[in-house]
Amino acid sequence: MTQPLDDADRNERHNARMKKLQAARARLMETKTIERGLIIVHTGPGKGKSTAAMGMACRIIGHGWKVSIIQFIKGAMTTGETAVFNAFPDQAEIRAMGEGFTWDTQDRARDIAKAREAWEAAKARIMDPEWKMVVLDELNIVLRYDYLPLDEVLDVLAAKPADTHIVVTGRNAKPELIEMADLVTEMTQVKHPFKDGVKAQAGVEF
Amino acid sequence: MTQPLDDADRNERHNARMKKLQAARARLMETKTIERGLIIVHTGPGKGKSTAAMGMACRIIGHGWKVSIIQFIKGAMTTGETAVFNAFPDQAEIRAMGEGFTWDTQDRARDIAKAREAWEAAKARIMDPEWKMVVLDELNIVLRYDYLPLDEVLDVLAAKPADTHIVVTGRNAKPELIEMADLVTEMTQVKHPFKDGVKAQAGVEF
Repeated sequence: MTQPLDDADRNERHNARMKKLQAARARLMETKTIERGLIIVHTGPGKGKSTAAMGMACRIIGHGWKVSIIQFIKGAMTTGETAVFNAFPDQAEIRAMGEGFTWDTQDRARDIAKAREAWEAAKARIMDPEWKMVVLDELNIVLRYDYLPLDEVLDVLAAKPADTHIVVTGRNAKPELIEMADLVTEMTQVKHPFKDGVKAQAGVEF
Repeated sequence: MTQPLDDADRNERHNARMKKLQAARARLMETKTIERGLIIVHTGPGKGKSTAAMGMACRIIGHGWKVSIIQFIKGAMTTGETAVFNAFPDQAEIRAMGEGFTWDTQDRARDIAKAREAWEAAKARIMDPEWKMVVLDELNIVLRYDYLPLDEVLDVLAAKPADTHIVVTGRNAKPELIEMADLVTEMTQVKHPFKDGVKAQAGVEF
């Protein structure tokens, strides 16, 4: 049986380990020198894809830059974050260009026309370097249903200004988009309160 | 060889399928009637855990409620979102109570004292129903290193006011916390630009 470490021993070992970790991390960070606008994808079946994009939009505002959020699927739902972004009218815009979820519209031709309209608006923002970040919210859904040609979207992303960050959200991201992206996070649902009969909560879901 | 569907056919089939989906969803939503404050956990090795919590905090502000963000690990780093939350001084606070990453401090006794201080501040916010949401940012790291007793933390969360939302972030969430939580999302890293030598970007990482 080994002797349990007393607190002083444990602290000392911890501190030595942390010192090594710090040195390793410093060496790693020295190799990270490239600054450029990123193509970021939030996908997967879990929550937090759009919400994390909203959090990034806050950071852009905080740094004094401009961010445009184009919502491809959600309609003119009044979400909590709209009020926050509206407090920075010179730096942020949220444009709800979708008609609601596709199972509410039941009109594919109309969905395609709306997707095209939203994409044209998005393209104008992406190509204007004044906008430091463009969030293409739920664009993955639009691409999944073939409402927009994937090649056309990828061509525009490839031609974006060097410093612009693009954030694409929505489940089922196309493999070609993941291939092109710099940073891809998959959100996985471990546990969801809907299963217990809890309804969507203001401040959490919208 | 089957005849390719023409566009009118494809639209009609899509619309019929969406009509069924809408009806199924409406039936499901009718069973979701419980409103209450949730315990939410963002964990996993991917990005977006704290960022999605910041997005939720924006929603709380947008709805006119109050949110407190307690940072357990990060020090007084000036992140982009601080500027946004500072625009709502009556509704939002960010309290950076940590001393930086634990590999920078190399002082376990001091880390524990700081964790205790942050936790006491967090407890006061959690128990005051005036705060609709309390974000315990990186609390999972603190629990992982045993800087705070897990049982004490779980007892406080179990005793939170009914309407209060708690958001806990950080990788390696304790199984007991996941068990207690209502909503758990795991963020998985699919692709990260660090691998290509790209450094942390203002507006994305901070």
